[in-house]
Amino acid sequence: MKKRIVIVGMGFGGIRTARILAGEGHDVVLVDRNNYHLFQPLLYQVATAGLEQESIAHSVRAMARNWPGTRFHLAEVTGVDFSARAIRTDTGDIDFDYLVIGAGSVTNFFGLDSVEHNSFDLKELSDAEKLRNHILTAFERAVIEPDPARKRALMTFVIVGGGPTGVEFAGALIELVHFVLAKDYPELSIHAARVVLVEATDKLLASMPEKQSMYTLRKLRSMSVEVLLNARVVDAGPERVILHDDSVIPAHTLFWSAGVKAAAIAATLDIPPKAGGRIPVEPDLTLPGHPEIYIIGDMAYLEQEGSALPMIAPVAMQMGSYAGKSILAKEGGLTLPPFRYHDKGSMATIGRNAAVATAFGMNFRGYLAWLVWLLLHLYYLIGFRNRIVVMLNWVWYYWFHERQVRLITKRNPAPS
Amino acid sequence: MKKRIVIVGMGFGGIRTARILAGEGHDVVLVDRNNYHLFQPLLYQVATAGLEQESIAHSVRAMARNWPGTRFHLAEVTGVDFSARAIRTDTGDIDFDYLVIGAGSVTNFFGLDSVEHNSFDLKELSDAEKLRNHILTAFERAVIEPDPARKRALMTFVIVGGGPTGVEFAGALIELVHFVLAKDYPELSIHAARVVLVEATDKLLASMPEKQSMYTLRKLRSMSVEVLLNARVVDAGPERVILHDDSVIPAHTLFWSAGVKAAAIAATLDIPPKAGGRIPVEPDLTLPGHPEIYIIGDMAYLEQEGSALPMIAPVAMQMGSYAGKSILAKEGGLTLPPFRYHDKGSMATIGRNAAVATAFGMNFRGYLAWLVWLLLHLYYLIGFRNRIVVMLNWVWYYWFHERQVRLITKRNPAPS
Repeated sequence: MKKRIVIVGMGFGGIRTARILAGEGHDVVLVDRNNYHLFQPLLYQVATAGLEQESIAHSVRAMARNWPGTRFHLAEVTGVDFSARAIRTDTGDIDFDYLVIGAGSVTNFFGLDSVEHNSFDLKELSDAEKLRNHILTAFERAVIEPDPARKRALMTFVIVGGGPTGVEFAGALIELVHFVLAKDYPELSIHAARVVLVEATDKLLASMPEKQSMYTLRKLRSMSVEVLLNARVVDAGPERVILHDDSVIPAHTLFWSAGVKAAAIAATLDIPPKAGGRIPVEPDLTLPGHPEIYIIGDMAYLEQEGSALPMIAPVAMQMGSYAGKSILAKEGGLTLPPFRYHDKGSMATIGRNAAVATAFGMNFRGYLAWLVWLLLHLYYLIGFRNRIVVMLNWVWYYWFHERQVRLITKRNPAPS
Repeated sequence: MKKRIVIVGMGFGGIRTARILAGEGHDVVLVDRNNYHLFQPLLYQVATAGLEQESIAHSVRAMARNWPGTRFHLAEVTGVDFSARAIRTDTGDIDFDYLVIGAGSVTNFFGLDSVEHNSFDLKELSDAEKLRNHILTAFERAVIEPDPARKRALMTFVIVGGGPTGVEFAGALIELVHFVLAKDYPELSIHAARVVLVEATDKLLASMPEKQSMYTLRKLRSMSVEVLLNARVVDAGPERVILHDDSVIPAHTLFWSAGVKAAAIAATLDIPPKAGGRIPVEPDLTLPGHPEIYIIGDMAYLEQEGSALPMIAPVAMQMGSYAGKSILAKEGGLTLPPFRYHDKGSMATIGRNAAVATAFGMNFRGYLAWLVWLLLHLYYLIGFRNRIVVMLNWVWYYWFHERQVRLITKRNPAPS
């Protein structure tokens, strides 16, 4: 029998659920507050002037064309009406027989209000554009700043969080400064520019093996990123960042990638959340007591072998596919075995010819890992034309040490 | 002797002045409130989801690298201090020995406040993004609008001005609707969408020969653009447009391309302006009484053979080159003959395989004119990588009837 299946969130999880359910005779409604799927792992390259923002986004309607039985509904979801089996949105309610929620995560500032107010993060396309505008504007302001101390603070960038995003952003930023901006700003002594990476634990890329962390640390330091381990940012203003030991870094740019938490909708589900606001789910990813509602991706809290699954794209993708298959199985009178995450490895790029990757129990570093990183990101990027544009930008940058998108599209941007 | 030459405005005129003056031993300061040169003729393609906004902009610092003796200063110019020989900007004053002002033009609403408040125009990159967001959002709202009349109004687009911008935008918009959005929105009866082009005179592309105007009119009508000649928009609200004869077009989108006027800085120059706020200049493009100050491009009012030179890119380019050469001549103790505009022709594209071009006393129409239009626009676009990205988008659209950039990057955008 034809069922109405509503999928909230067109991220890595949601689009895979949609793909599985397409053409199976159901009425599938795709809901997102944006009309595009965003390839978040490359946001940092938009922020560092390496990619056009449009090249990492792909129209949901363009995808839905190839998914029979699906349709798109642009809306912000505000809550779920469990008894009426409907979601509430800013453009009306939508009934469902099955509901799949994969609304992702937002930045977690852990209650540090001054940091939240004075820092940038990278979750949305607009965040990346805002950060790029801010970085380039800082250099423009440095050119005309007479005071040497303020000039240096304008050229100082503090990055919090030594996970993949922090590492990749730090590497891309220092390369932007040394390879590109050094030529753009002959009037600045570019080696006064500082990129400071602050990590609370004693190693970078904590989820990776020790060797990979060490390589990453050495490599970033050789690129002259200042890496501070066992350090925490506790306070911030527009022109300075304060660490746990009261030391002050004069800096006009603070980038926060030290944590995420479940999207706001999780709090409306009337389930006591776990760490990071995540919703504990049954082994088949359904909401306890609601076998017709699935929670996937960053929002879902599920333990496997004693620890919670990480909030990363591969988990979301596998959960998305599982949710789709599970619904089809139920409709066919079957039950799938519980969800199991297959860890295919993880990777992070540091800079030109330098990345770390861990897969199949092996560790790759340097050029090979970097090449694999490039190819995998191109593979997972949605939209063939997007792949060409991204590849073009990468080749251009590799050959000519040029990043073309160094535009300030809005002047005087302020942190959110 | 080394002179300080300040060039205000990095449009078509200013960059040509800079190119001429580069490497001639002077201190050339390039001033713009944006850090990029914008290729305005393709803004309408950004607004109709055909091009990434970044692909029609090029960093001024990237250009200045190749221009010895030039440097860039990001600033909004607020006025000229004639006695101190300095320009005033929001980031400090800059002294000059010579000044070249090519700050371009802004949209002229001719005092129609309700129209200005409820319409879109295309002068800046952000205008194009805002208009694209608005057009795509209108279709999303149409999907969920229950009232048939409002649904139709959401899908109705009124364009004012039958000049090249109005014609090109109308053609690109109707193609977006018929070729692309028709596939994106199977739930809408897309032929209810209306594109209405309103022109005050009795012909389109008034500056072109009669045959070209007639072809353009026939072609647009065959593409189902509703062309209203001898019609004027006199009033507008968020959901309707009112014509001179009190007839009402229910429409959520009004695009105004019926006139331009000199940029605001022209009014600060203490010279009684001509029509459109333009500054009357001497035959050598200098400000009367100020042989060290040049006015170029849309801001300059100069008659040739009894009529004022048009406010178009080719005039700005030739004026820009002339101003540079004139300064070099003066420094060499010479004087150039007065400025003379050489009209190499004009062109406008209407749609797929259809354009009009007039050059060397000949008129071209259709496929050949269209091909020449494409090639010339690629040629004048700055930045080799931009050319590749733009060409890629054009080829993609031509082959696959696909425009990839149909993203709503900000929800609920309102007219400026």
